[in-house]
Amino acid sequence: MSDPATSSVHGSRLTVHDRILSWGDIEEARRRIGGVAHRTPVMHSRQFDEAAGATVFFKAENLQRAGAFKFRGAYNKIRAEQERRSFSEVVAYSSGNHAQAVALVSKLLGVKATLVMPEDAPPAKLAATRGYGADVVLYDRYGGDREEIGEKLVRERGALLVPPFDDPLIMAGAGTATAELLEEVPDLDFLVVPVSGGGLIAGSATAAKHLRPEITVYGVEPETANDTAQSLEKGERVAIPVPRTIADGLQVPSPGRLTFPIIQETVTRVLLVSDDEMIETLAWTLERMKVLVEPSGIAGAAAVKHRKADFAGKKVGVIWSGGNLDPKRLATFLGKVAT
Amino acid sequence: MSDPATSSVHGSRLTVHDRILSWGDIEEARRRIGGVAHRTPVMHSRQFDEAAGATVFFKAENLQRAGAFKFRGAYNKIRAEQERRSFSEVVAYSSGNHAQAVALVSKLLGVKATLVMPEDAPPAKLAATRGYGADVVLYDRYGGDREEIGEKLVRERGALLVPPFDDPLIMAGAGTATAELLEEVPDLDFLVVPVSGGGLIAGSATAAKHLRPEITVYGVEPETANDTAQSLEKGERVAIPVPRTIADGLQVPSPGRLTFPIIQETVTRVLLVSDDEMIETLAWTLERMKVLVEPSGIAGAAAVKHRKADFAGKKVGVIWSGGNLDPKRLATFLGKVAT
Repeated sequence: MSDPATSSVHGSRLTVHDRILSWGDIEEARRRIGGVAHRTPVMHSRQFDEAAGATVFFKAENLQRAGAFKFRGAYNKIRAEQERRSFSEVVAYSSGNHAQAVALVSKLLGVKATLVMPEDAPPAKLAATRGYGADVVLYDRYGGDREEIGEKLVRERGALLVPPFDDPLIMAGAGTATAELLEEVPDLDFLVVPVSGGGLIAGSATAAKHLRPEITVYGVEPETANDTAQSLEKGERVAIPVPRTIADGLQVPSPGRLTFPIIQETVTRVLLVSDDEMIETLAWTLERMKVLVEPSGIAGAAAVKHRKADFAGKKVGVIWSGGNLDPKRLATFLGKVAT
Repeated sequence: MSDPATSSVHGSRLTVHDRILSWGDIEEARRRIGGVAHRTPVMHSRQFDEAAGATVFFKAENLQRAGAFKFRGAYNKIRAEQERRSFSEVVAYSSGNHAQAVALVSKLLGVKATLVMPEDAPPAKLAATRGYGADVVLYDRYGGDREEIGEKLVRERGALLVPPFDDPLIMAGAGTATAELLEEVPDLDFLVVPVSGGGLIAGSATAAKHLRPEITVYGVEPETANDTAQSLEKGERVAIPVPRTIADGLQVPSPGRLTFPIIQETVTRVLLVSDDEMIETLAWTLERMKVLVEPSGIAGAAAVKHRKADFAGKKVGVIWSGGNLDPKRLATFLGKVAT
């Protein structure tokens, strides 16, 4: 009795999506990372609720191993590839958190890791990556092409490339955080997620729409790094010059080839936040909730706190995506808001 | 068949202790605060274990309501007194965290609160206390007598005085945190607790010795605020000039009349830490564990991290007692350690 036209449109959209990333992939990722990744806590603050005018639940991926959600995808990817074939080395290019995750996962799974990182990456992230025993190769963020460097290393050494976001196994791993969040708070009206290359939001939205089809998913980008917002508006992937923002994890020039069609299908809107709004929310969260979230990680919370959309009276899930932040940079940020 | 002399000594010691504070008081406190106080998480860090050479579990009372363990005692005290008699106002004198706790509890239990606070208390603590709707009366920490001011207010207004530590109901409330910790990690070898007036350690040690008699309990004081260390050595309460230390919650000149005999009976030693050791541990904990603990709250962790006693290979429980810290002061501390 269904309308064949609607059914066909609906069916074809599902097929596009399912061909890249399905709920089954996320279930598999959960089994793979179970007992290795932390099941991070879901946090709540009456004071934040008052400030936001909504009921807000934070999935604290800043407390994940290696300090960010990235561990989930990296572990899922490398472990799954190990199940398929044999290799002794992995290579990744990353603005930092993905590098740390790949370095730690490699150590856990007994493979060598080489990381291609921008030379202006925060010192804490460089040090932490090296601290896990990985090799670091530096490149110029504003001039170099990290993908070319990474792929060259793969060709020369026969290693496994672990992309930061544009890979179904990476997205599926990232989506497990939202699956856990919805187990604890099943009746969310909104899910709000920071957007860089789109791996986190593609995985998160896939999980959220499966578990709660009526949920509205919003992405959040820095005002200066609005490549996904522009892409959604234009209906195709837009590339912008490497954006400058304090959110060093969100400095990606365009959404991914694989992540973008999923974002188009599942994400209602991308909200934009300023550096000042991220700093304010970061300092507030530290002072009131006693938890450190890095600028990229706080973008979702900043959008809710600064009411970038109408969340009034609603239940909102927010991903705090990471917590890796230099004490020196943190001190600078606190100096800007402290009274 | 027991030696009557030993038995008598043992018996009399238990009687002294039990007359002040028993395990039953802590059980009653647990029932009273259940569902109101947070059951705070127990946290763990592989990296901290490596640094300390021990296996360390942190009871995160910095995540307690009003940001410190003080909520437990204040709620237990005010609620228990409400069960006994009728009053419409409470008065407390406090270096900050106790004030915030009393203010919040009063709001929850529908009584008016007046807080007597030192005029150099951190602005965040003054603001937070006023934020809960309490009246604040300021006094000079280095010249005034806060107890006199507090008692005068009690006489004039017929209010209930809520002392910061020297009260069995306050101690019993404080002890509930350790009862929770030992439920999650029953086989601790050591318990390490910051010491101010002694309410937290008296309650903690009473709970710990009941649940695990073989546990060793250490207190920790700042080097400049070693009144309890001196008192234990001398065998009687020693008063020192109001100590200057960054740990503003531990600036008490002597242990309490009621807390000290319990400390004598249950605490093996008081370890001393420097301001620099507290700052280093606070910054480390923030950067690596993503959690904010205030200087007073980090004293126990600083003692373990800086190996102030031999914890090698042991299981150690540490109370992070609070997390209320001005962003401005935090920025100053981070400036001292950031590289």
